[in-house]
Amino acid sequence: MLDDAASADLRAFFGERFSTARPLLDQHGQGESHVTAPPPWAVVFPETTAEVARLAVLSARHGFPLIGWGAGTSLEGHALAPQGGVTVDFARMNKVLAVYPEDMLAVVQPGLTREALNEELRATGLFFPVDPGANASLGGMAATRASGTTTVRYGTMRNNVLGMEVVLADGRIIRTGSSAPKTSAGYDLTALMVGSEGTLGLITELTLRLHGQPEAVSAAACAFATIAEAVDCVIATIQTGLPMARIEFLDAATVAACNAFSGTDLPLRPQLLVEFHGSPAGVAEQAERFREIAAEFGCDGFQWARAQEDRNRLWKARHDAYRAILASRPGCKAVVTDVCVPISALAEAVEETRADIAASQVPGPILGHVGDGNFHAILLIREGDAAEAAVAKALATRMAERALRLGGTITGEHGVGFGKLPLMAAEHGPGWQVMGAVKRALDPEGRMNPGKLVPPG
Amino acid sequence: MLDDAASADLRAFFGERFSTARPLLDQHGQGESHVTAPPPWAVVFPETTAEVARLAVLSARHGFPLIGWGAGTSLEGHALAPQGGVTVDFARMNKVLAVYPEDMLAVVQPGLTREALNEELRATGLFFPVDPGANASLGGMAATRASGTTTVRYGTMRNNVLGMEVVLADGRIIRTGSSAPKTSAGYDLTALMVGSEGTLGLITELTLRLHGQPEAVSAAACAFATIAEAVDCVIATIQTGLPMARIEFLDAATVAACNAFSGTDLPLRPQLLVEFHGSPAGVAEQAERFREIAAEFGCDGFQWARAQEDRNRLWKARHDAYRAILASRPGCKAVVTDVCVPISALAEAVEETRADIAASQVPGPILGHVGDGNFHAILLIREGDAAEAAVAKALATRMAERALRLGGTITGEHGVGFGKLPLMAAEHGPGWQVMGAVKRALDPEGRMNPGKLVPPG
Repeated sequence: MLDDAASADLRAFFGERFSTARPLLDQHGQGESHVTAPPPWAVVFPETTAEVARLAVLSARHGFPLIGWGAGTSLEGHALAPQGGVTVDFARMNKVLAVYPEDMLAVVQPGLTREALNEELRATGLFFPVDPGANASLGGMAATRASGTTTVRYGTMRNNVLGMEVVLADGRIIRTGSSAPKTSAGYDLTALMVGSEGTLGLITELTLRLHGQPEAVSAAACAFATIAEAVDCVIATIQTGLPMARIEFLDAATVAACNAFSGTDLPLRPQLLVEFHGSPAGVAEQAERFREIAAEFGCDGFQWARAQEDRNRLWKARHDAYRAILASRPGCKAVVTDVCVPISALAEAVEETRADIAASQVPGPILGHVGDGNFHAILLIREGDAAEAAVAKALATRMAERALRLGGTITGEHGVGFGKLPLMAAEHGPGWQVMGAVKRALDPEGRMNPGKLVPPG
Repeated sequence: MLDDAASADLRAFFGERFSTARPLLDQHGQGESHVTAPPPWAVVFPETTAEVARLAVLSARHGFPLIGWGAGTSLEGHALAPQGGVTVDFARMNKVLAVYPEDMLAVVQPGLTREALNEELRATGLFFPVDPGANASLGGMAATRASGTTTVRYGTMRNNVLGMEVVLADGRIIRTGSSAPKTSAGYDLTALMVGSEGTLGLITELTLRLHGQPEAVSAAACAFATIAEAVDCVIATIQTGLPMARIEFLDAATVAACNAFSGTDLPLRPQLLVEFHGSPAGVAEQAERFREIAAEFGCDGFQWARAQEDRNRLWKARHDAYRAILASRPGCKAVVTDVCVPISALAEAVEETRADIAASQVPGPILGHVGDGNFHAILLIREGDAAEAAVAKALATRMAERALRLGGTITGEHGVGFGKLPLMAAEHGPGWQVMGAVKRALDPEGRMNPGKLVPPG
């Protein structure tokens, strides 16, 4: 609980933009997550970097934690307040501050969503490529090192954040990186902040890399007889160096859910959804090469989507897959898993996961950004069914352990939050303690998003 | 000086691989650098990670600094010992430990050079692209976040190191990253270590991203009437999104030096050296598009180098440019500058630099990886001429200040070492103190490459 002095200071400074209204607290106490925590003590809506810095100073004075909040789409509880505290909702810091078309850069506030940014960029011929599916905030995407369907071509947030402004725990404001395309000037604080999940500071500004809208785009859905053939096709495609813009996998259960939810008519078999970006001739060449590779793995039933409206329909169905899968078993919630393995281990990882899920009583369609070795099982468990929850948790843990055994990681793109905290020691060994040391160096009092990412205590 | 107990411990453990022989110390007390320091107290040649960890433990016990040494090609004194200490020469840790062609990864020891790696990869169809010119060690390249001629296409060491094994100041061994193409599992310790210049630990193993050898390659040298037209051509090319594999600038003085040194016959005008990678059709399309753009900026005199031996001759001349420039003024040494600016500011930065150098008494040919906004002036000063040294230092400082004013960085790829230390506060402000805090968290006694990168004291 906030003590009276803290509340008074916050109210005096933020006025109406400080709130302890129960519905608002409840709204900031849940997310798209299977992990839960009590609601925060209060919510504040800053409008400027100086206000965020003031919040950090008040946090230091009164000792309350600060938890950043973007769009609430986190899947591992990043934006929840398991140890209490004040949620910093960036909804009012959602502007595009500048676009530099010549340098292919945009400077934005953290509360801006990726879709809003791309809307503003439409006339420039540029776009911001990182696409986690959800219309997440860019600050949140940076904080979790998000990626998604286009990462196979354009990289993750790690590759697409060039610099930041960050408010530290003591209220200092730092700028990381520069507007130059590269630098060797000291520790890469930008890369340290990307993926730090608000535990080292609050991001108040981002300099993002933009990319040219491709001159030509072509997409296709292609069906395979087996998961193994689809995944082996991905491996072969990546290894030939074909510059895929997207290469997404859906298993048959995911396809069924998408068809029912989005009205697509994809064959009820394992599918790859692919996209090619480039010049018209380049796209044609890439598509033909991919078709040849896919044919070697028994692919038939290419559904081409060359017109923009067809592509939009295809990718909307893909983006709605999570909701489609949820809708496929009414009365259920989802445990969304997220592992990433070396591409050579992808077939083994997916096949073992499929068999493990099949042997359980829990439905778990599989889909993923397989060009990166990254895939998810959406485990559907009945609300309030403790036995199913335990089964799902065990499945998720085995997926993570399997990924580690195969040289991969416990999370490809969703981050740690507190959902994945119990698995960090297994992945990092003494490196996890090093993360703790870095945390203590920047936030010795542990007020920045406590209970997340670093070792407890 | 090492005390007797430290010497005895080191000699007992390393035997003949511990040395205080004067010629060896002197050899490790100089580099390709205008910055100087006394030679180290001793040199050790470890052969295993466990031996490096043992060195760290002995360093902790006796309090002597440890300074990593790769190929000695650093330009800012990274591998020198301004505060004394023991140089850790990785010459005997120079193996390729594993190549995973399916995952396009190689696991290597830090003393391996990039050319030796590519020699070993030749039969695999893969290559490691980062090319700083010098045949540097891969550990050193990671430590300085090196880049070079191919970075415009393939990225810097930041993009091409997927994971590491690092020995920390207290002797702990950590592994960062994984073999998966991406991860969101906590702080990006790999990115923190890349560019940390040995101040946070000693790199003992690297997992590197490989790339497919391009099916087709074409290169060309093209001459422009003015620097401004050459640089504007670069800006236009990058902005159209043409996937250049290399786009290098040489001013007329650099061209003259290269012609004299390497026997090339390039016109004595500002030049761009370009290279295209892709499928045969893709390369032809890229080359034609570039030719059209270059023509708009008055380019004439394309010299195509389609055969591999012609390309090799062209790029060897480029790689020998530093030595060619040194040879152009006998009895001189070089102050090699290194700034990087947003691409939109490139013409202004190069032109102001050229005018500034022209107004001085010091010759300073300009060349660079202009596709990244990165360029160098090689300032030639007579050995022992204090007045010329002062002029060069002032020119270099103004270049760095100009880069900062234009939104860039004081070093694009050479790193900080102690040569660039006086400029760090201007670039990073309070962020430099944050680097110091991270340093103290991992190396509280300041034994890892002291006097470099972070704030003194």
